[in-house]
Amino acid sequence: MKQLFVIVAAFMAATASAQVAEDFKPATTNQEGHEYPMVNSQRMVRAQISAPEANSVKLDIGGVKYDLVKNAEGVWTGESAPQDEGFHYYQLNIDGASVPDPGSMYYYGASRWGSGIDIPAADEDFYTVKNVPQGSVNEVYYYSTVTEKMRHCYVYLPAAYRENPTKSFPVLYLQHGMGENETGWSAQGKTGIIMDNLIAAGKAVPFIIVMDNGLNAIPAHPDTTQQMQFPFPGMSQRPNGPRPQGMGQRPGGPGQGGPRPGGPRRGFGGFNGFQEVLLKDIIPMVEKNYRVIADTEHRALAGLSMGGMQTHMITLANPTKFAYVGMFSGGTFSADELKDAADFKKTNKVLFMSTGSKERGMAEGDNSVTKAAERLKALGINAHSYISPETAHEWQTWRRSLYQFAQLLFK
Amino acid sequence: MKQLFVIVAAFMAATASAQVAEDFKPATTNQEGHEYPMVNSQRMVRAQISAPEANSVKLDIGGVKYDLVKNAEGVWTGESAPQDEGFHYYQLNIDGASVPDPGSMYYYGASRWGSGIDIPAADEDFYTVKNVPQGSVNEVYYYSTVTEKMRHCYVYLPAAYRENPTKSFPVLYLQHGMGENETGWSAQGKTGIIMDNLIAAGKAVPFIIVMDNGLNAIPAHPDTTQQMQFPFPGMSQRPNGPRPQGMGQRPGGPGQGGPRPGGPRRGFGGFNGFQEVLLKDIIPMVEKNYRVIADTEHRALAGLSMGGMQTHMITLANPTKFAYVGMFSGGTFSADELKDAADFKKTNKVLFMSTGSKERGMAEGDNSVTKAAERLKALGINAHSYISPETAHEWQTWRRSLYQFAQLLFK
Repeated sequence: MKQLFVIVAAFMAATASAQVAEDFKPATTNQEGHEYPMVNSQRMVRAQISAPEANSVKLDIGGVKYDLVKNAEGVWTGESAPQDEGFHYYQLNIDGASVPDPGSMYYYGASRWGSGIDIPAADEDFYTVKNVPQGSVNEVYYYSTVTEKMRHCYVYLPAAYRENPTKSFPVLYLQHGMGENETGWSAQGKTGIIMDNLIAAGKAVPFIIVMDNGLNAIPAHPDTTQQMQFPFPGMSQRPNGPRPQGMGQRPGGPGQGGPRPGGPRRGFGGFNGFQEVLLKDIIPMVEKNYRVIADTEHRALAGLSMGGMQTHMITLANPTKFAYVGMFSGGTFSADELKDAADFKKTNKVLFMSTGSKERGMAEGDNSVTKAAERLKALGINAHSYISPETAHEWQTWRRSLYQFAQLLFK
Repeated sequence: MKQLFVIVAAFMAATASAQVAEDFKPATTNQEGHEYPMVNSQRMVRAQISAPEANSVKLDIGGVKYDLVKNAEGVWTGESAPQDEGFHYYQLNIDGASVPDPGSMYYYGASRWGSGIDIPAADEDFYTVKNVPQGSVNEVYYYSTVTEKMRHCYVYLPAAYRENPTKSFPVLYLQHGMGENETGWSAQGKTGIIMDNLIAAGKAVPFIIVMDNGLNAIPAHPDTTQQMQFPFPGMSQRPNGPRPQGMGQRPGGPGQGGPRPGGPRRGFGGFNGFQEVLLKDIIPMVEKNYRVIADTEHRALAGLSMGGMQTHMITLANPTKFAYVGMFSGGTFSADELKDAADFKKTNKVLFMSTGSKERGMAEGDNSVTKAAERLKALGINAHSYISPETAHEWQTWRRSLYQFAQLLFK
C-alpha cells in the first residue's frame, strides 16, 4: 500500500512538472533588480517570497488563491494557472494577511495600491517605449469650485504640442474604472506610450488627453435633484473573469472612503458628481491652461467600465458637448436613447463601443457592442465597435480599445 | 506573591498607557480610506494589520523592529517609539517576510518600492498643496546616446512657464540619494508643491527643475580611465539616525541590479556614468525641448546625499557649467579644492551646503557645513550653510534644504 502511494505520488509529481514549462522570466512590471514574480511561456505566474516562520503563503491572482510551498531556507514558491495576456492586479497572502508582493511595482486598482503584473502579449509592441518623438504626462493640481478642494489630474501632451508652440490641439477626456483613480490610464493603461507610438506611425493625429478622478468628485453643495440612476438599464450584466475587487462592491466600500455622516458618499456619490466637476472645473481649467481648440468638434470623452458609464450618462445629458464618444467595457448606447437625439446626431462624429471577448454579454448576442453599433448605424450615427481578442474586463482590453479609438479621433 | 504580581503588572500597564497619548490620527501618507498607520502627538507610529494565522508581526521603522500584539480577531496592533518630524520609509514583517504595509502609499527608497509615512511637522505648511498658481511635474522619456537606451525623468515647470508662452527660464538639475530614483524629489520631496508655494509667496523666482536618475546611468561604452573615486575624501562620516537601507550598502546590492558579468555595475557604476549622461544627454534634451536660458548663469546643480556627492564631483570636473551649486547632506567643498579655482570663483553665484542637525559630523565641529562655508567665504565664494533642526539623514532635511536653496537661485 505504501509502495503504491509512492508510485502514484511520483507519477502525479512527474505529470504536474511536465505541465509547467520551465522558461520563467522576471515580469516586466517587477521592481528593478527583482527576479520574482516570473512568467513562463504558458503565461503562468510564479511567485516567491522569504517567510521563514510562516505557516501558509498564497498567491492571489485572478480571483483564485494558489498555495506556495516552503523550502528548507524558508523561501516559499508557487505558480498560478495560465493567465490572460496583459495586466492583472494580484497580491500575496501570508498567514491570513493580504499584502503587496515586495517584488512587484504597485498600481492603484481594486480600490488599493498594490501589486500588478504584465503578462507578455503578442501585440505588446504598441505599448512598448520606443525612440520616437516623446510627449509627456503632466501631473497637475487645480482648484475645484464644485468640491471646494484642490484636485489632482494627469495631462498627456503630444510631442507636437512642444514642437509647435503656437498651435492649438483637440482634447480627449479619458476616465478610469471603479476602484481605480487618475493614475490608471497612464500607469496600467500606458496612455502616453500608446499615443507617442501611434502619432509617430502616422496612425493618430496629435491631441491632448486629460485623465482625472471620476470617483472622488463630491460636490461641496450637492444638488440632490440631479442624481442619476446607477447602474444604467442594460448595464446589469456582470463581467466574467478576473476583475478589480472594486467592481460591484457597495458604494462607499473599502478604499472609497466609506459613508460620510450627513454628506454624500464616495464611490457612486463621486460617480454622479463627476459630471459637474468635468463641466465646471476640468474642461475650463484645461481650456484656460493649455493650447486647446475649445469647441465640440475638437472635444472627445471616453472611459473604461465605470468611466464608460459616466461617458454614457454625461453624453446623454450633454449631447452636443463632445463630438467623439468612447465606451470601453462600459456598456452600449441603445437606439432608443439616440433615435430622436437630433442635436447629438448633428454634432457627433464617432461613437465607439468596445469589450473584451471574454466579457459576458457584450461580446456576442443581441446586447453585444457589434449589434449595438449596427442599430446605431441604421440611425445614421457613425458607430464603431471593437472586441479585444481573448481578454476579459481588464487593462489589455482597454489598452487595445484606446489604440483603436485614438485612430478614429479628430480626423 | 500572585497579588504582588498583579499589582506590579497593573502599575506597569498604567505607566505604559500613560506614556502613549491616545490621540492617534491616520497618517497623511495613507492610502485613501485607510485608518492605519496612525500617528499621535508624540510622533509615535501605530501600525495595524489583520493576519489571523501569523505567529509574529513587527513594525520595522527607523532601523528598529517593534512587536505588534494580536487580538481575538487576529488583528495585530502596536506602536513605535517617537519618530522625527517628516518622512520615513518603513515596512511590516510578517513571520519573517518583509512586506509593504497595505495601508500606506508606496515610495521608492531604501532600494525598493515600499511603505512611507509622513510625521506631521511644525513647518509642514511650506510643503502643503494650496490654491496658488500651480505648475506641473512632467513625466518624460528620452533617448540617451550614452546608455543607448530610453531614459525616464521628471521636469517641474512653474505656472509662469505656461502663463508666459514666449519666455525662457533658468533650470535646476536636482538629484536623489543612494537607493532612490527619479521619483523621489517629486513624491517624497514634494518639489512641485514647495516651488509653487515659494513662487506664489514671492520668495523664489520661477525656474524649471529636472529630476533624473543618478544610479542607472551606465554608459554603453564606458571610459574606464575617467572613473572617479568614491567615497570622496571627507565623506566617510556615516549619517546617524534612520536612513534608507541603500545608504552604505555595497555597490550592486539589492535593488541596484547586482554585478553584471563583463560590464559596469549599477550603483556606483551609475554614480560615475551620471556625469556623462547629464552633460551629453539630459542638459541637451532639456535645452532643446523646453524654453531654457541656456547659459551658466541660469543653470544650477544640486542633490541630496549621493546626489550631493555627484554634484561635488561634477562641479569640480566642470567648474564653469553651473552658477549655483547645492549639496544637501552630501558633504562639503574644502577650501583646498577651490582656493585656486579661478574659473569657478568667476562664474559661481551661490554654493550651498546643508545637513540635518542629527547627522553626525556635518552639523557641528570643524567638518560642519557652517565651518566649511566660513572657509569658502574667506576665499571670496558666496557660500551658504543650513542646518535642519532636529532631523537626520532623511527627507525632512532635504525638503527644508530645497526650500532654503530655491530662495537663493537666479536672483
